Amino acid sequence: MKDTEVSVLGLGAMGRELARALLDAGHRVTVWNRTAARAEALAERGAVVAGSPGEAVGASPLTVVCLLDEDTVLQALDGVGAAGRAVVNLTNGTPEQARRVAELVRGQGGDYLDGGIMAVPPMIGGPHAFLYYSGSERVFREHRPLLDTFGAAHYKGEDPGAAALWDVALLSAMYGMFGGLLHAFALARSAGIDAGEVAGDVGAWLTAMGEAGPEYARRIDTGDHTTDVVSNLGMQAAGIRNVLATAEEQGVSTALLGPLADFMRLRLAGGDHAAEDLTGLVQLLAPGAETV
Amino acid sequence: MKDTEVSVLGLGAMGRELARALLDAGHRVTVWNRTAARAEALAERGAVVAGSPGEAVGASPLTVVCLLDEDTVLQALDGVGAAGRAVVNLTNGTPEQARRVAELVRGQGGDYLDGGIMAVPPMIGGPHAFLYYSGSERVFREHRPLLDTFGAAHYKGEDPGAAALWDVALLSAMYGMFGGLLHAFALARSAGIDAGEVAGDVGAWLTAMGEAGPEYARRIDTGDHTTDVVSNLGMQAAGIRNVLATAEEQGVSTALLGPLADFMRLRLAGGDHAAEDLTGLVQLLAPGAETV
Repeated sequence: MKDTEVSVLGLGAMGRELARALLDAGHRVTVWNRTAARAEALAERGAVVAGSPGEAVGASPLTVVCLLDEDTVLQALDGVGAAGRAVVNLTNGTPEQARRVAELVRGQGGDYLDGGIMAVPPMIGGPHAFLYYSGSERVFREHRPLLDTFGAAHYKGEDPGAAALWDVALLSAMYGMFGGLLHAFALARSAGIDAGEVAGDVGAWLTAMGEAGPEYARRIDTGDHTTDVVSNLGMQAAGIRNVLATAEEQGVSTALLGPLADFMRLRLAGGDHAAEDLTGLVQLLAPGAETV
Repeated sequence: MKDTEVSVLGLGAMGRELARALLDAGHRVTVWNRTAARAEALAERGAVVAGSPGEAVGASPLTVVCLLDEDTVLQALDGVGAAGRAVVNLTNGTPEQARRVAELVRGQGGDYLDGGIMAVPPMIGGPHAFLYYSGSERVFREHRPLLDTFGAAHYKGEDPGAAALWDVALLSAMYGMFGGLLHAFALARSAGIDAGEVAGDVGAWLTAMGEAGPEYARRIDTGDHTTDVVSNLGMQAAGIRNVLATAEEQGVSTALLGPLADFMRLRLAGGDHAAEDLTGLVQLLAPGAETV
């Protein structure tokens, strides 16, 4: 196997973009994919094609892994002989999964860095892509210039699970917003209004309301959920009731926003919380998390 | 009863701000509230205090209503004798509720305009407040300068329910986003990370991802949910599974985002939809709404 600077395991939509970005930056790259045909276009551009994950890991001091899921990663890295090598795993997963992969790699004597990619494949190498990393700080520092090829790199600590936690926290906020967008557009369509007609107002409204984020964070961090009268939980519970009642009138499912209304009711039923901000719900969402 | 230009029924947090904004703008104002004590501060500023809703409606050509809910509005406006008067109802409610109030007012020979306030009370009269209106276009045009006192005024058609629909569509998008924010902050706290530490990244991420809104709207309006490989439903379903699995690992409730994952699974199980965008879920959320 020819010595290269970096190997890439997994040539799905994201893996291919990572390999492409490395080639574009002038790195010598080895690639491996279970279905070898996926490597052809990269081979034409100069990538060395490895016949196995072990061959790929052996070819470079650093191996970037981007496979389907944790099981595929554990299978691919099983017995590859990572001793003296660094593995950067960018496969999407949970913190616990990242820690298990770290254990496998470290068990072989390798160094492990986990990462979460905050971008879709076409954004890789562009100005808006960023990635969270956690695990070996030495690997992060040593390979920082290469990692910067993918996008802005943010190191989140020695715990290999930290990058996944940050990644998933952002994804969860996004999926909440996407659910809300789908609900808003479904409501519009149900009334014969084009989604495109409301999209501008919806976007501007989300931008304005999103400014509450840092204030929400402050309330959650301090545990002080007291708010003024203008948007307290009592009023918000009435507001979301109208949202759900409107959805019912219009034949739109209440399944996406019903649980938030349930949490509001629960919180109001659980004590003298009507004058609180919405943030008090975190005590139901993650009991004890405020006092961690 | 002294003749005034405008009457305000309901002096809760929002009603008081509406009356204050009118007084600030130099209008002669009559106010009414079930609990008369709430009117005192406004009376000191020159407002005439009416002893009943009928007295208030009779005092001015235009009456602005901002009460607790539809039942309170129907009760207050019952038999007030709105003939030749205009009623603008800014009470938060559903489209059907707005139509019922319109029927009551029109049954008395009055003109009806419904409105949805997109602001919290302290924003009234400020640069960021805006309101949706629907119902009598004549009332809207004739009283536009006065209505502009509250915030930017957007007219949405003759259907008295339209303003509530727009209002609720925006609120539903907001509550989706708020649920996502709470989930993200709960995840952070569960890992011992301050919500304030992730708030900046979460906000920037939501801003970037929110740019998908107009594209989502276009897909929903055209019914063409085909997307490229970069963020198709198959990949999103895997992504949200990791979100839920992480929540479980961290002891954070999956109740807020579970239903979105359920819809993804349902859509994938319902046919060959893996290459679609998330927008195809609207067909489950509001069956038939796309073809309205």
